[in-house]
Amino acid sequence: MISKGQIKLITSLQQKKYRNKEGLFIAEGPKVIGELLKENLELHIHFSSLEGDNMQGICEISERNLQKISCLTTANTSLALFKIPPSKPLQEVGLTLVLDAVRDPGNLGTIIRLCDWFGVTQLVCSLDTVDCYNPKVIQATMGSIARLPIHYLDIQAYLKQSRAPVYTAMMDGANVYDTPLPSDAILIMGNEANGVSQKIQDFSTHPISIPQFGAIQDTESLNVASATAILLSEFARATEM
Amino acid sequence: MISKGQIKLITSLQQKKYRNKEGLFIAEGPKVIGELLKENLELHIHFSSLEGDNMQGICEISERNLQKISCLTTANTSLALFKIPPSKPLQEVGLTLVLDAVRDPGNLGTIIRLCDWFGVTQLVCSLDTVDCYNPKVIQATMGSIARLPIHYLDIQAYLKQSRAPVYTAMMDGANVYDTPLPSDAILIMGNEANGVSQKIQDFSTHPISIPQFGAIQDTESLNVASATAILLSEFARATEM
Repeated sequence: MISKGQIKLITSLQQKKYRNKEGLFIAEGPKVIGELLKENLELHIHFSSLEGDNMQGICEISERNLQKISCLTTANTSLALFKIPPSKPLQEVGLTLVLDAVRDPGNLGTIIRLCDWFGVTQLVCSLDTVDCYNPKVIQATMGSIARLPIHYLDIQAYLKQSRAPVYTAMMDGANVYDTPLPSDAILIMGNEANGVSQKIQDFSTHPISIPQFGAIQDTESLNVASATAILLSEFARATEM
Repeated sequence: MISKGQIKLITSLQQKKYRNKEGLFIAEGPKVIGELLKENLELHIHFSSLEGDNMQGICEISERNLQKISCLTTANTSLALFKIPPSKPLQEVGLTLVLDAVRDPGNLGTIIRLCDWFGVTQLVCSLDTVDCYNPKVIQATMGSIARLPIHYLDIQAYLKQSRAPVYTAMMDGANVYDTPLPSDAILIMGNEANGVSQKIQDFSTHPISIPQFGAIQDTESLNVASATAILLSEFARATEM
């Protein structure tokens, strides 16, 4: 059974300010929940509408109530709350990906999976980047969020004190295919509509671009998640070669 | 003003069978509509809720009626119907991307933009791939759909008659960074959950993979749009080098 207080708590967690206040976030469906459990994230409570699941210390919930607390259009069979893990210290080695005002939860979720795949050291997000504990981000990351250190901070201050070379994805940068890419570096990706902001571009030591190949060079730009996929792949292949 | 018959026609076009019957598809918002007009797609009808737009032969519509016919949760300021263009003949040169049962409209939209960016000759989709004139695909492609030849056909039959080498994205293929990639080729990407189906794998001459770099090699797989971004970039850089 779920109490009225629990319903109120869970629906409040769709908002960032309540996630921060309670130190909890929502994950839905056995696949995502299972991945987070495997990564030893601390479980707060776990509901399932499947008969038999309550054998394992999981709370029973009706399908109707599950739909009520779900962030999904069609609820899965389970929903859990996990504790937001404490943040790890910032690292100075390896590749750091910096996001400047990425707003779309689907894009952030895809980028977190990519960072995990390519062994990025850490993800540093500007304070106006979408929250990584947003339920839509959690659903898109598929457990990767538990493996990647993520920081939200003033990225101007961060870049000011950092000593690594700064590569910035720009429309008119150097062809990335011809650019030597070191293993210790910072890569900055910008906002979906406006790219990297001017005040952040000022820290760039190496503006880079993915060249366009179509005969009609009219494609506006690549989606930020697609561009991140390609640039992280370029850093990874440079390290491997 | 919009008639009841027009409302009925437009809402029916959210379904593939009516799009095929009427030979029409929906595009929403001045940006997407503007890009399709620039590519000379044939306009069937154009509605706008903005005052002044009716000066240019655009039909006036109330915000309430626009929301009624919109496929978006929150309607934009305009909606247009375009004629589905006739398909172009299949080409045998350059890079052909084949999709085997890609189901998510957002993924297909992103992949169409990537094909346009990297100058892919044509996109060949299996008959169970999501329809490229699905409104969600149209919104994600940002006009690229008008520049890329797209075919829906029996991909087994297509691969049987084709003479180009066939590269297939697989979990256990050769490291793509070490694989020479020719400019005339076929690249096959598979379904979101199941990858490339066995009967299609049988046509593969070169199974390829994107190596995983994380210390904990536990990321399940890359999203199909991310993997397509990286592999199309690899084919493009190989041609350029």
